[in-house]
Amino acid sequence: MKIDLAFTPLEMEKKDLTGKSVVVIDSLRATSTMVTAFENGCSGFIPVASIEEARDLAAALNDPKVLLGGERGARALEGFQVGNSPRDYSPEKVRGKTVIMTTTNGTRALVAARKAEEVFIGSFLNLSAVCRRLKESGREVMIACSGEKNLFCLEDFVCGGAIIACLEKGEDCLAMTDASRAAKILYEHFSGDICAMLEGSEWGQYLDGIGLGEDVRICARIDSSGLVPVYRGGKVFLDR
Amino acid sequence: MKIDLAFTPLEMEKKDLTGKSVVVIDSLRATSTMVTAFENGCSGFIPVASIEEARDLAAALNDPKVLLGGERGARALEGFQVGNSPRDYSPEKVRGKTVIMTTTNGTRALVAARKAEEVFIGSFLNLSAVCRRLKESGREVMIACSGEKNLFCLEDFVCGGAIIACLEKGEDCLAMTDASRAAKILYEHFSGDICAMLEGSEWGQYLDGIGLGEDVRICARIDSSGLVPVYRGGKVFLDR
Repeated sequence: MKIDLAFTPLEMEKKDLTGKSVVVIDSLRATSTMVTAFENGCSGFIPVASIEEARDLAAALNDPKVLLGGERGARALEGFQVGNSPRDYSPEKVRGKTVIMTTTNGTRALVAARKAEEVFIGSFLNLSAVCRRLKESGREVMIACSGEKNLFCLEDFVCGGAIIACLEKGEDCLAMTDASRAAKILYEHFSGDICAMLEGSEWGQYLDGIGLGEDVRICARIDSSGLVPVYRGGKVFLDR
Repeated sequence: MKIDLAFTPLEMEKKDLTGKSVVVIDSLRATSTMVTAFENGCSGFIPVASIEEARDLAAALNDPKVLLGGERGARALEGFQVGNSPRDYSPEKVRGKTVIMTTTNGTRALVAARKAEEVFIGSFLNLSAVCRRLKESGREVMIACSGEKNLFCLEDFVCGGAIIACLEKGEDCLAMTDASRAAKILYEHFSGDICAMLEGSEWGQYLDGIGLGEDVRICARIDSSGLVPVYRGGKVFLDR
């Protein structure tokens, strides 16, 4: 099994994804929030690039079961029912609902992954479940870090490294690129305290600074979910 | 002192370099080769983007003290007097000569760094000397990894991490970004055997496969040089 990693959506656009399984990671917070939402009975997400597109689509669908969700600069958007905090996605709010979602980085990464054979939503919350799914598939793997505005961010890289370390267990010949080797080493460095890594990352510090430190700690709950949302046909949903 | 790191020339193009010191690293092999050439009495380099541009400039200068140097895919170029191997740059060949140089990645990284206050040529060969120069300057530092065709490569990242680790010694408040923290951790992981890291990297393995393993080992000679070439006004030279 071969495993590669892209640092940013921009890098993903250069990769040949034919026949590959892609795991999109935006651990602070979009993919952690999606996993939490599905745990709480959410029906699905429709990721869109812009705030305007989100509003237009919501208006066109005109469905009480559709919510508007997302953020810019980690802050909630006017007129949107939910933000990008896992705490927004309570069962009361999202059960049976579909969320039109626009975020700064996670959405770009999903769009960049669209040509892959299959796309999974990954985070620390569903780490082992994602690995089981990848092993079942047996395809070449590409880890797609969302990054921060097309630049490197630590938390997605380390989360990617955690998936690689997990895949390596019991695998005879996992072929790693420089990027996937580096991610695995970084994960091993931080594995004793993932929460501290998230809190110490640039974005984690920013979130804490605007009063969202609790979100960071929620995103560190390793393997708290067994769900693996997929992205297919422009939607994120549970296919099993 | 603040220190950041860019993985690729493409990422460098997005960075604000005003007032900063940049260290360009292409440890396998362009910047290691340049340092070796200066040790052997080379006068300077004129980095250019294309093979054609190199030939045109050589024809225009029509000077016996000017050589053509460089590579594509690590291989020497027809009609060029020197390649991109440090072993090509012997005192007999390069003493008192200026080399018009075109390489796949290193040249791009130099061009991307042009807007900085000052640009230094870094490699494992002149690690401590580069750090001394950066400390003298006292400016914010940007490590510019050349990467491989605008993708991550391990050897430049680890070399960048070595510079960061060196700068950190005796520094009270070195402010690191996620990228520079990650590079330093990777360096610490590999610091016991830099040669093995270079040999195990994707590009190191490629070079070994085409019979250039000796070059890889030469590029691992930490602190074998005290020279710090600078890139200014389109030329690489020694300014002291």
